[in-house]
Amino acid sequence: MPCPAAARRSHRADRRHGTILPVTSTPVARPDEVRRHNRTTLLRLLHVGGPCTRAALATELGLNRSTIKTLVDSLAEAGVVEERVPRPGRGAGRPSLLVLPQPQAAVVLAVDVQVEHVAIALVGLGGQILGRNSWNLRGRSSEPDEVITHVIESAGMLAADLDVKAVGVGVSVPGVVRRSDGLVHQAPNLRWTDVALGERLRSVLRIPVLVGNDAELGAVAEHLRGVAKGASDAVYISADVGVGGGVIADGSSLRGATGYVGEIGHMVVNPQGRDCYCGSRGCWETEVGEAGLRRALGLPEVTPRGAVIVELRELGRDPAAAMERLGEFAEWLTLGLVNVVNLLGPQLVILGELFTALPEVVIDHVTEQVHRRSMVSRAVGGTRIATSALGADVKLLGAAEVAFEGVLDTV
Amino acid sequence: MPCPAAARRSHRADRRHGTILPVTSTPVARPDEVRRHNRTTLLRLLHVGGPCTRAALATELGLNRSTIKTLVDSLAEAGVVEERVPRPGRGAGRPSLLVLPQPQAAVVLAVDVQVEHVAIALVGLGGQILGRNSWNLRGRSSEPDEVITHVIESAGMLAADLDVKAVGVGVSVPGVVRRSDGLVHQAPNLRWTDVALGERLRSVLRIPVLVGNDAELGAVAEHLRGVAKGASDAVYISADVGVGGGVIADGSSLRGATGYVGEIGHMVVNPQGRDCYCGSRGCWETEVGEAGLRRALGLPEVTPRGAVIVELRELGRDPAAAMERLGEFAEWLTLGLVNVVNLLGPQLVILGELFTALPEVVIDHVTEQVHRRSMVSRAVGGTRIATSALGADVKLLGAAEVAFEGVLDTV
Repeated sequence: MPCPAAARRSHRADRRHGTILPVTSTPVARPDEVRRHNRTTLLRLLHVGGPCTRAALATELGLNRSTIKTLVDSLAEAGVVEERVPRPGRGAGRPSLLVLPQPQAAVVLAVDVQVEHVAIALVGLGGQILGRNSWNLRGRSSEPDEVITHVIESAGMLAADLDVKAVGVGVSVPGVVRRSDGLVHQAPNLRWTDVALGERLRSVLRIPVLVGNDAELGAVAEHLRGVAKGASDAVYISADVGVGGGVIADGSSLRGATGYVGEIGHMVVNPQGRDCYCGSRGCWETEVGEAGLRRALGLPEVTPRGAVIVELRELGRDPAAAMERLGEFAEWLTLGLVNVVNLLGPQLVILGELFTALPEVVIDHVTEQVHRRSMVSRAVGGTRIATSALGADVKLLGAAEVAFEGVLDTV
Repeated sequence: MPCPAAARRSHRADRRHGTILPVTSTPVARPDEVRRHNRTTLLRLLHVGGPCTRAALATELGLNRSTIKTLVDSLAEAGVVEERVPRPGRGAGRPSLLVLPQPQAAVVLAVDVQVEHVAIALVGLGGQILGRNSWNLRGRSSEPDEVITHVIESAGMLAADLDVKAVGVGVSVPGVVRRSDGLVHQAPNLRWTDVALGERLRSVLRIPVLVGNDAELGAVAEHLRGVAKGASDAVYISADVGVGGGVIADGSSLRGATGYVGEIGHMVVNPQGRDCYCGSRGCWETEVGEAGLRRALGLPEVTPRGAVIVELRELGRDPAAAMERLGEFAEWLTLGLVNVVNLLGPQLVILGELFTALPEVVIDHVTEQVHRRSMVSRAVGGTRIATSALGADVKLLGAAEVAFEGVLDTV
């Protein structure tokens, strides 16, 4: 029978682009399912968008006021939201009550494993960081066992301090991660191979755990809470020790086959370039990663991150000198971005972390070059290139968001 | 009010990954909407998957037998499907009737504009090509006006000959295309800029017209009817005069911002390479496009396509000679594919058109190299690299499918 598989796929495509109607023998959704779905959607709206009036919630969800009232009342009774009279506005008449998510009503644990540094945070409903802790790995072991043990202990202490209980976990790792079970297939800069990170945290913490590639989670954070708000297609470029890329396509994370996201840092931009540990040569990361940036600045290999950033900030005061020293670096950055834009056609590329310290003149030059040299950028009237404004928390915030995604319907 | 935009996006993400329930003030879908939706889904199943028993349709759609019977009876009455007793099988009992789509019940016009060649076909429900016509552009004008006039005239004659009427049009163009209205922003190898192809065909033919990038439509065809059947993430690489890429991500076409698909051929692989008309230099297309292949083979620039293919086929008989002459070409092909795999993480890459004539030893070598040099390929246990088996019709078939996608609910 040739029909099943292919058609099932079309079916899914339809779900994404077309009208959504249930196609089961019971075509009518059960009222309690509808209510739960509406409740989750309303909570997500408040969680991502912040305080909202009942009136705006009604408009946004396409529900009538009495349905909204029932939903909000039940959430308020459960302590998940609070209602407040908004500050008086200009309009006449009685103001619509403002509905606020209650941070303590749902708390997730966010973990950001970086090459030299691990950060954890407990994040409340609405995205507020309730408390945090972090430690350096420099000079310490980054063995998976020790990192996992330390995360679990610190999270326990933090939760006890704050008197909250996490209901889900999101973890950011700079590597190739299988989303389905949180297996870290390879995190070369950490020297991790096939670490069952998701399973191990889950077996101890006994709550849902989602592990994601760091750049993917950066993209999620920028999309929900950063400069990519409102963009349907965006790429976030992470620049820590390595370089990675996270892609939002048509409003959702691009995952790749079997949940492995792509490795933008290992796109070859310089076939005559340096050997890369990944088995290839002249990868983008070898040219524009932290080591490449230090070389471009003429700094010794052991220069700590902080000193690199100070050097960049100082260089920013002298645009001519900045372009002279970083001209070749800017060219490699441009080449990779031209490829990213030509392959993925985003509206917006966000440069994260180390790149946010680059002198403005370099960013402007790269933007102009990408526009001039990318057909796709020209077609959309110039792809926007922005630097992240979420600071060092970007991956923690992204990790929190994927954790919330999995638990909002249980709040 | 901060809430609306961001949350609307999450909402959409939910549609793709989560449960689908209507969230409107009328949460219950109207019976006639459900019936129409089921009818379209059933038709798509037959169109893509071919003949199917009522029993299999019921299983596949999750509908009970009586609902299937009502749907099939009404489609049969309208002449859209036919029922036949299947050839006797091994099982005992009365065989389930086989439901077949009737090609004439819905016919679309598929148009494949290539750089040197235009092909049109009328394609019936089920994907059968009912009739076709084509003409060379070599030595003739490829001015948009003339191509459009010729397409309209030929389509009219073909429809008259076959005594059918097309209900939709799909057009494949090698360029940057805006999906929403079929504007061809740039098709450099055709020397087209800002041609309102969709609007112009629509204004004359007065049926829905969808224009797509050729590689995107190649990917659609491979996904529905070729080697990528059943794959959720696949990349199709087209190799005509230029090189392009179409991406299936999570079962759907990747479109990029504002409907412009990416331009894989203009990814820079050789920064020291030749200038490209796109404004960049050392684009993948300049190394592995038709001109690059001719150079690699040491053939004069004017060598016609057919002679290039003959040369490749002959070279295929002597693997050692093939690798000697095409070793460098294979290296550029590898580099681009490593990038594609690292950025997009597909399960499968399909090499189309000219690449299908490459000697087997070259394909094997490239596959082995991509596996060795791509982290993402290694993570998924080796990304599959296959050559297209749909032959010269691949883009016509893709064009037909996007046309059907737009009209199946009106059949």
